[in-house]
Amino acid sequence: MSTLPNVFTDPDDSQLVADAKKDKPEDHEFSYTERDVILYNLGVGATAKDLQWTYESHEEFAALPTFGVIPQFAASSGISLGWLPNFNPAKLLHGEQYLVIKSPIPTEGNFVNETRLLEVLDKGKAASVTTIVYTKDIATGKVIFENQITVFIRGAGGFGGKRSGRDRGAATAVNTPPKRQADAVIEEKTSASQAALYRLSGDYNPLHIDPSFAAVGGFDQPILHGLCFMGIAGKHVLQSFGAYKDIKVRFSGVVFPGETLVTEMWKTGNRVIFSTKTKERGTTVLAAAAVTLVDTDTMAKL
Amino acid sequence: MSTLPNVFTDPDDSQLVADAKKDKPEDHEFSYTERDVILYNLGVGATAKDLQWTYESHEEFAALPTFGVIPQFAASSGISLGWLPNFNPAKLLHGEQYLVIKSPIPTEGNFVNETRLLEVLDKGKAASVTTIVYTKDIATGKVIFENQITVFIRGAGGFGGKRSGRDRGAATAVNTPPKRQADAVIEEKTSASQAALYRLSGDYNPLHIDPSFAAVGGFDQPILHGLCFMGIAGKHVLQSFGAYKDIKVRFSGVVFPGETLVTEMWKTGNRVIFSTKTKERGTTVLAAAAVTLVDTDTMAKL
Repeated sequence: MSTLPNVFTDPDDSQLVADAKKDKPEDHEFSYTERDVILYNLGVGATAKDLQWTYESHEEFAALPTFGVIPQFAASSGISLGWLPNFNPAKLLHGEQYLVIKSPIPTEGNFVNETRLLEVLDKGKAASVTTIVYTKDIATGKVIFENQITVFIRGAGGFGGKRSGRDRGAATAVNTPPKRQADAVIEEKTSASQAALYRLSGDYNPLHIDPSFAAVGGFDQPILHGLCFMGIAGKHVLQSFGAYKDIKVRFSGVVFPGETLVTEMWKTGNRVIFSTKTKERGTTVLAAAAVTLVDTDTMAKL
Repeated sequence: MSTLPNVFTDPDDSQLVADAKKDKPEDHEFSYTERDVILYNLGVGATAKDLQWTYESHEEFAALPTFGVIPQFAASSGISLGWLPNFNPAKLLHGEQYLVIKSPIPTEGNFVNETRLLEVLDKGKAASVTTIVYTKDIATGKVIFENQITVFIRGAGGFGGKRSGRDRGAATAVNTPPKRQADAVIEEKTSASQAALYRLSGDYNPLHIDPSFAAVGGFDQPILHGLCFMGIAGKHVLQSFGAYKDIKVRFSGVVFPGETLVTEMWKTGNRVIFSTKTKERGTTVLAAAAVTLVDTDTMAKL
């Protein structure tokens, strides 16, 4: 039984978009084990010192919260966009990711993903497409994760769609850092093989390992997965401020495996706004980013 | 149908050993995918620069030859040794490993392992037990790997067994390095999380990740898997001298994750004798080690 509505209707949608939204994607199953959890955690920089993330017999063994993007990955990235005018998958960029952790993350599971088109915007030169995915535990029926994934497709705009999106709360928040020094900063050097390891969690796009594919995309070398450095930054927030129930990021630059990531964090109420840049080039790679902390105990400590 | 004989009889065996040999272990299946191959290769230090070992679409994508110890691992380490007098699994040490690559290694497969007791020696204070495993491709029936695994069990000797083993050729060769400078030397720093990554290939012994288990074993910190640094050294030999059809090592010391391994290699005929030490402590960790090269083309180049 579906948890999501079959169609996210919007009276402002053009006929093209309204029709595309009616094409309900098939549900998609995903199973994982403790081994997959450890592999993900290592892929976003957990180490042998972080036994709670790398040792299945540790009493607090857990998936990092950003593991929530993994079970839905094949479901959302498999959605058909061929109905967009001038659609070219090579011109697709991952723009934003919003993840809500709705229930505790099991360390192994059999999940099913429900995927829908949530919002399609016509940005003139580009199309912006946001997909929503609910990830449910098959055994309990509980929703574990909600993801909202926004991709931009260059050259696929101008189809008469609406230009601006609706306010979806944390998913579309601007998250501008306050004009004061960061409350916490964590620096982490990625490994030259970070992408080679991370891709085993399910994103085998050759852009992240094959220099010839990277060259076609206009890069001197393969680039790190956006969701990988989102995971690394999400780990920094967790280490600094404790557990959170949602995380939102905008991908604003590329990271090359081996570069050092610097995450600056500002606590404002029950939220932590953060921003991640590469130390070597000073480029901001995660912007408009924030989490909502889980409880007030965490807040009281700060 | 069995490829190995049901019992490796030996007229010199004591009744205890003869009876133990008759207890035929169950066959054990093992399936793996390209993802498992990449994970193994990364676990023994392959990097994003080694695309033939870390990228499934590379035209020469392959498992490192020492992957051959993986499909049999659960089979051979699950063999019952409870019949030995004073058997204590905490006193078991992995002594030697001999691997023969009998057919090209598929990059994914469904295998079945046949395991037998090959030889049991009574060393007085310790027992030495050698297990033989044939690993066959279920689809073709072809034997892909032969492994001979020797473990020493301290405190389990003195049961009236024979003291010396039979000559099993390369499996028991002494492999003393010639008294000249090595023909090739490769140095490689392991990662502090090398064991945390390698264990995902199937050896989850907490000795390799949990400091409290390591302390019980008398170590200041978790130690790297012997088969992991055998794989790293095996990669050094492959990089220096090309493909080989068998590899034999004796585990003569421990490695702590993060240490630097130095492999010295000497070519003699179609064999390469090698020895691996830790740079930091100068301890020899692989001794009496050698491979047999695959073909004379490789030899002609040297």
